[in-house]
Amino acid sequence: MGLLAPSRAGSAVADATGDAAYLRALLDAEVALTRAQAAAGLAPEEAAAAVTAAAAEPGRYDPGTLARRARAAGNPVVPLVADLTAAVAARAPEAAGYVHRGATSQDILDTATMLVCTRALEPVLADLARTAEALRRTAAAHRDTPMAGRTLTQHAVPTTFGLKAAGWRSLVLDAHARLTAVRATLPVQLGGAAGTLAAFHAYAEAEGTPAVLPAYAGAEADRAPAPAGQDPGTRLLAAYAAATGLAEPALPWHTLRTPVADLAGVLAFTAGALGKLAADVLTLSRTEIGELSEGSGGGSSAMPHKANPVRATLIAAAARQVPALAAVLYGALAAEDERPAGAWHAEWQPLRDALRLVGGAARDAAELTAGLRVHPDRMRHHLDATGGLVVTERLVAALTARTGRAEARRLLDAAARRTAEQGVPLATALRDALGEERLPENIDQLLDPTAYLGSTGALVDRALERTVHTPQEPV
Amino acid sequence: MGLLAPSRAGSAVADATGDAAYLRALLDAEVALTRAQAAAGLAPEEAAAAVTAAAAEPGRYDPGTLARRARAAGNPVVPLVADLTAAVAARAPEAAGYVHRGATSQDILDTATMLVCTRALEPVLADLARTAEALRRTAAAHRDTPMAGRTLTQHAVPTTFGLKAAGWRSLVLDAHARLTAVRATLPVQLGGAAGTLAAFHAYAEAEGTPAVLPAYAGAEADRAPAPAGQDPGTRLLAAYAAATGLAEPALPWHTLRTPVADLAGVLAFTAGALGKLAADVLTLSRTEIGELSEGSGGGSSAMPHKANPVRATLIAAAARQVPALAAVLYGALAAEDERPAGAWHAEWQPLRDALRLVGGAARDAAELTAGLRVHPDRMRHHLDATGGLVVTERLVAALTARTGRAEARRLLDAAARRTAEQGVPLATALRDALGEERLPENIDQLLDPTAYLGSTGALVDRALERTVHTPQEPV
Amino acid sequence: MGLLAPSRAGSAVADATGDAAYLRALLDAEVALTRAQAAAGLAPEEAAAAVTAAAAEPGRYDPGTLARRARAAGNPVVPLVADLTAAVAARAPEAAGYVHRGATSQDILDTATMLVCTRALEPVLADLARTAEALRRTAAAHRDTPMAGRTLTQHAVPTTFGLKAAGWRSLVLDAHARLTAVRATLPVQLGGAAGTLAAFHAYAEAEGTPAVLPAYAGAEADRAPAPAGQDPGTRLLAAYAAATGLAEPALPWHTLRTPVADLAGVLAFTAGALGKLAADVLTLSRTEIGELSEGSGGGSSAMPHKANPVRATLIAAAARQVPALAAVLYGALAAEDERPAGAWHAEWQPLRDALRLVGGAARDAAELTAGLRVHPDRMRHHLDATGGLVVTERLVAALTARTGRAEARRLLDAAARRTAEQGVPLATALRDALGEERLPENIDQLLDPTAYLGSTGALVDRALERTVHTPQEPV
Amino acid sequence: MGLLAPSRAGSAVADATGDAAYLRALLDAEVALTRAQAAAGLAPEEAAAAVTAAAAEPGRYDPGTLARRARAAGNPVVPLVADLTAAVAARAPEAAGYVHRGATSQDILDTATMLVCTRALEPVLADLARTAEALRRTAAAHRDTPMAGRTLTQHAVPTTFGLKAAGWRSLVLDAHARLTAVRATLPVQLGGAAGTLAAFHAYAEAEGTPAVLPAYAGAEADRAPAPAGQDPGTRLLAAYAAATGLAEPALPWHTLRTPVADLAGVLAFTAGALGKLAADVLTLSRTEIGELSEGSGGGSSAMPHKANPVRATLIAAAARQVPALAAVLYGALAAEDERPAGAWHAEWQPLRDALRLVGGAARDAAELTAGLRVHPDRMRHHLDATGGLVVTERLVAALTARTGRAEARRLLDAAARRTAEQGVPLATALRDALGEERLPENIDQLLDPTAYLGSTGALVDRALERTVHTPQEPV
Repeated sequence: MGLLAPSRAGSAVADATGDAAYLRALLDAEVALTRAQAAAGLAPEEAAAAVTAAAAEPGRYDPGTLARRARAAGNPVVPLVADLTAAVAARAPEAAGYVHRGATSQDILDTATMLVCTRALEPVLADLARTAEALRRTAAAHRDTPMAGRTLTQHAVPTTFGLKAAGWRSLVLDAHARLTAVRATLPVQLGGAAGTLAAFHAYAEAEGTPAVLPAYAGAEADRAPAPAGQDPGTRLLAAYAAATGLAEPALPWHTLRTPVADLAGVLAFTAGALGKLAADVLTLSRTEIGELSEGSGGGSSAMPHKANPVRATLIAAAARQVPALAAVLYGALAAEDERPAGAWHAEWQPLRDALRLVGGAARDAAELTAGLRVHPDRMRHHLDATGGLVVTERLVAALTARTGRAEARRLLDAAARRTAEQGVPLATALRDALGEERLPENIDQLLDPTAYLGSTGALVDRALERTVHTPQEPV
Repeated sequence: MGLLAPSRAGSAVADATGDAAYLRALLDAEVALTRAQAAAGLAPEEAAAAVTAAAAEPGRYDPGTLARRARAAGNPVVPLVADLTAAVAARAPEAAGYVHRGATSQDILDTATMLVCTRALEPVLADLARTAEALRRTAAAHRDTPMAGRTLTQHAVPTTFGLKAAGWRSLVLDAHARLTAVRATLPVQLGGAAGTLAAFHAYAEAEGTPAVLPAYAGAEADRAPAPAGQDPGTRLLAAYAAATGLAEPALPWHTLRTPVADLAGVLAFTAGALGKLAADVLTLSRTEIGELSEGSGGGSSAMPHKANPVRATLIAAAARQVPALAAVLYGALAAEDERPAGAWHAEWQPLRDALRLVGGAARDAAELTAGLRVHPDRMRHHLDATGGLVVTERLVAALTARTGRAEARRLLDAAARRTAEQGVPLATALRDALGEERLPENIDQLLDPTAYLGSTGALVDRALERTVHTPQEPV
Repeated sequence: MGLLAPSRAGSAVADATGDAAYLRALLDAEVALTRAQAAAGLAPEEAAAAVTAAAAEPGRYDPGTLARRARAAGNPVVPLVADLTAAVAARAPEAAGYVHRGATSQDILDTATMLVCTRALEPVLADLARTAEALRRTAAAHRDTPMAGRTLTQHAVPTTFGLKAAGWRSLVLDAHARLTAVRATLPVQLGGAAGTLAAFHAYAEAEGTPAVLPAYAGAEADRAPAPAGQDPGTRLLAAYAAATGLAEPALPWHTLRTPVADLAGVLAFTAGALGKLAADVLTLSRTEIGELSEGSGGGSSAMPHKANPVRATLIAAAARQVPALAAVLYGALAAEDERPAGAWHAEWQPLRDALRLVGGAARDAAELTAGLRVHPDRMRHHLDATGGLVVTERLVAALTARTGRAEARRLLDAAARRTAEQGVPLATALRDALGEERLPENIDQLLDPTAYLGSTGALVDRALERTVHTPQEPV
Repeated sequence: MGLLAPSRAGSAVADATGDAAYLRALLDAEVALTRAQAAAGLAPEEAAAAVTAAAAEPGRYDPGTLARRARAAGNPVVPLVADLTAAVAARAPEAAGYVHRGATSQDILDTATMLVCTRALEPVLADLARTAEALRRTAAAHRDTPMAGRTLTQHAVPTTFGLKAAGWRSLVLDAHARLTAVRATLPVQLGGAAGTLAAFHAYAEAEGTPAVLPAYAGAEADRAPAPAGQDPGTRLLAAYAAATGLAEPALPWHTLRTPVADLAGVLAFTAGALGKLAADVLTLSRTEIGELSEGSGGGSSAMPHKANPVRATLIAAAARQVPALAAVLYGALAAEDERPAGAWHAEWQPLRDALRLVGGAARDAAELTAGLRVHPDRMRHHLDATGGLVVTERLVAALTARTGRAEARRLLDAAARRTAEQGVPLATALRDALGEERLPENIDQLLDPTAYLGSTGALVDRALERTVHTPQEPV
């Protein structure tokens, strides 16, 4: 399925989100569930061992077949449980009853999804860290490299490439911080059929399980909650979280989809953050601009000379797609009942696709920033493209101090018009308008675009003080 | 990749949109291009034959490898052309130069995409036609089956299940008509590097090709257009359309994305149209309502007794996803230049995913409507659930004619309140309020919900007159 | 509410979609309903006259107050009916009972929305026609104006500005055709409480209405449909359509939302179509490119010299917003029951906002294209920017005919590399590589970018044959 | 503009986001800018006083006129600056030059937007806190109120209404925590024309400003950054943050749109979180279910007896819209250059509309939860609707302990089938299948749905420990 997805083809995140990885995570979720029940005294250790071994049988579980059998119940857990139960029964018949015991399909699929997200975000975070580091070096190296600042497509005033790179980096750090924060909160899912964890009570009750649940013998006890720490459901929830390495939720979240919504937001953010970098690289790589070029430009099937900004193109494509997927995921928050008919099912592919797109974009960004070629000469060249208009703002200030604001503006408007329309350099136009005696003595400096960089250096310096490991913070 | 996609797993549309099918369509597009050049006198027949044979070599082209090699140039056509050229060269070295000659990657990928869409829509249309036929039968059978009309979740006035089914069908027919209309317009793509078809001029010029292009010998001729029918570019465009069976566009459409946007719209429409059916089935299948049930309810991993409306659930999930994908595709209309950096790349997966989701939903809808079980007794039962309030509207009319509007409304508001709050049947409440003598003599008929069906029969009849083959029309 | 919406501020479409216009349309819908009932013999002419007069009372209905009173029932029709009834009662008490008789709020609001859309699309279509005409002139004038064709941000091969303008125009015509087609199908809404039109039966029955409905006297008749043309519901539906000028739907469409979905699609399409124009204008207006400029560039609050492409900017902003609104509208297709709780309410603002954004963008496009300044000298200048690389494709063809394909490619790759990396003109690099004797004799022509325009002229000619009034057709 | 927006009509958030409020915030941003310059020694105190007074002139600034004049430059700041400058000039001519000095339109509009968001979120947070408190009371009161747990529309196992209400509350708290966290980070915007803050250097330089900037006299100094704390740009940035009460950003964020994206995410989350509550209220209010009803049901224009769940309907409508608006905002992250042409402009209305929709939904949720009527008798009644099937899971556990798993499942499948298909109570079916002697002695308790509530009590207790003021945390 990668033919139309060059961004992620062959990547770590593609592996981590493929059917094989999902299948592995589903089996991990089942194994952990039995292990947690054993840890909580709700299942024998032998059962857990048998499930663990059966789940590890190579080649036993086939994603393609499971996908087709998933049609009947509408999710892949039902046929997988059948296969896993058969595998367990073949090696330890008495353990078969412990497979998936007390759980609902969504417990397993949600837990597997959180495992997949946790795992898939690892290479994403690494690529973002690599990207941030490359941008740190770039921003430091070009802290004082002047270039035209562009607004609404037009040259405005000079800026530096260092400030631009520091800005890109700040977005990458924002993305890294947000992904890291959300990743640390991803919870295990366990609620049973309708989120009450009641089946675990039923089995504890039916089997006695005295050590764990001494008070659970009668109807009265059933109506009153067990003392803190003795409720078998919440005990198991904690054990399940421990067995998976995921966070323990306060409540089963079958229809309380905060974790999925949080992922949606940070994935859309990351795609957009990288999309900003890509938008700038695409602009600055244009033939007429040529201030940047990708290290290894993509070839063309038709033209031998072309060096296309392929990495930036693929990142830009991802940035166009993830927000819409996030919208689907946010929309799925409004899910009815204890487990919904559709809202949940609508999450599966969009979340996976968002991970993949972001993973591909992060890899592309790491490659792009590692190999980015900067052309300071082109940047310097373009600062002269407007004949000096790029420093008009500074001249307004300088002349205002001499002539008053109205006169300064009038003079500069007229001079700027000559420059823009007739191509007369602004220096000449001003000299003509003011006369030599009224010209500020430091006119050459005032007209030097490389000497009008404002706070760029200070801004770069403070931006580079922030590191990858900084926790979430404002821009 | 189907593990999380039970709706389409194993379906015709899944096959028609998979990597293998895309690869086939890409090769078909290359073959047709050489064939068209041969037909237009721009390439020898032998070259076309060699390309055709080479493209058909089984196992020669591998989607997985191509996907990874697609990273360099950002699309899979570049490596595929290399492989195809090698295959042609191995059998007819002199033909190798004709592979992909004059085309750009986007020509091939866009043409392949239109082929994939044309092919994938065939089973979708068939499933929609099956669905419409099942709904026709259902609507006819239940033309006069009364049930509660529900608005803002509350019983309003009686309606019939026939009218509901006829409404579902009208949406399915709307979808069928729109998909059919758009499918018939899907164009071939051919423009060369920047949409000017210039390479075909260059080869015609370089090779003489006198019979076809007598006037093309010098600079003057080059600047003036060839007489109608002699321009080698537009001639080839027509030949290419003929060779693929796709429509001939007026212009190359590398960044004039009407076909993709039209597909986006009709796919989102179809998903939503089926989503309406699913929303109603889900509601009417609720345990407390039980007026409908799916023929073969989906089982549960936790509860042996459950019969879930799985088909409707999966359709509902699709209806939540396709509009967002369509938004990405509409967004891609705003693509810069002759071929864009990102907007085009952002179309590939969303269009494919939209096709798949709609294809899965159409299959689910066909299965759902074929097996839908209707429970008229439950429908009849619920008409009494409000103690007669469901016909209040009729009583307002009847009493207004007798007592005037204000008095009628006052009487009915009071009676309805007794019914709603104290459970007193509306008949009793009215009798108490009006006294026997003021009661309309036909009060029993007036209170009979099955005798207050308005135009439902007439509406069903006129709706069923429309057939699947009706061209696009208003609701 | 226009402070953040400069695109539509003060426009015809803003007027046509404002609260006052909606209020007018709601009143028009109520008036037409009573008129239709009078025409169908279900109400006296005097009642229709009284409602008509009351609805026209200036200043009687206040949008702000109605908005707040709309909170109780969740829509503005309920308080408006109260106000209208009071106004009618004040002038003709016996007519008050005919206000809104038999209708549900959604009948009125949907009908009003269709009226608003019909009206608001008129200036939109006019602006699109103006835009298309300006682009026709531009494309014709610049049919042979050469410029660089750009792909993935890089110069590819030459094209003409005429072809680009013809492409923009084709999208505008596509939008015009689609909007026109959908506008002609917009239907009136009438179904009563749950889409059965039963209330009209009830009133006909209660009041006798013999001339119109002779057969409607008893229970039997009530169960059998009236003969064609005698069913009072569908008769009234036709009369209501006639009274409003809207189309007659086959079925009430309270939850069969094809008209809204069709509007969603064509509005998103139109925004995107104009967005393509804007994307190109923004690119070609860049300081370094300067091939286009807006007639009256927007000023800047900070820099006197700036001339921003403001119209294109605002169009681009609209193109980013409408697809998401369309996604909401497509999502609303999946609406449960006879009238839904939320899906319908979620349509109101997005549809209105989509109209406004498209209307603003169409006006901006008309202004932009009317005043667009084209700079053929800059276009010509940039064709030399790559030192001849822009015609490499043509040289490949020419040399292939002489040296064979492999050698031609090898020679050109080497020469192109010298040009790209060392700035040596391609002519020189080729001369060095081939030697004078192997150089094609027409090398100057081959290297002339203005002589390599392919089919651009022919394509422009055929594109301009299409006119605004052409019905919907493929690209 | 509120006629189609009953949710927010007349609300605090509507006021806080209207044109008047935006105009106020724009003026506040201008005033604060001059005040900050005065505080930083870059402007005289008198100028700040004059600007402050002029900005406060009642009736001087008209949103409607400004909106139309905003067309020229594409944003409302340009005409507002003109009006403000005129107002200042009228009272203190020498102060006019300090209006907007050194800033760009985006500095003011972004700062104003952050002020509007900060202010508008205050009533939103208050409504969420009210909602959470109402739900805390509801959850506590119904901690042990049994009801059917529903999954995929079908009864699954019993749960409690307390657990459902506690779940709603946890989402509301998640929303409150996320909104609070983001609100605290909203930054001031200040960068000048291209984000370099250079104009402030220029004015400091031109005017000497010796006390503040002793080192800024020559070209050398201009190239080296001022020592920490002496850079006039970053000093002013801090002063501006202080003057507005907003956070100080590390960098100007004209195209580093983290704050807007963060708002997008939390607003979409909040809409979805409330949408879950609404989805459940709509379901449980259905005529056939009737377990909940809104305190004051909305009336109907057609049917006197209807009590529609209007608040839930309006919340559900908002939840359908905000995710799409958030997608537009996430998409705007990918903005080119120092200030973009379109991406920024596309943020304005969607952010405002998202605020309004969320604000309306929060108010509706507060009203809904304050007045929600719970019907425990209906809940209890429905637990019997499946004839005992709702506790099948528990019986599986109990019988498994006696008969082994396979036999238990076989027995229960058969009994459940009789119950589902023939309506035989499960108790009877089991008695028939097992015989009296094999029946568990506690069969009555096992079959009692109110005695199978699992961990619901424990879960409610732990969920209610969380308070509104808890900082952001996992589910």
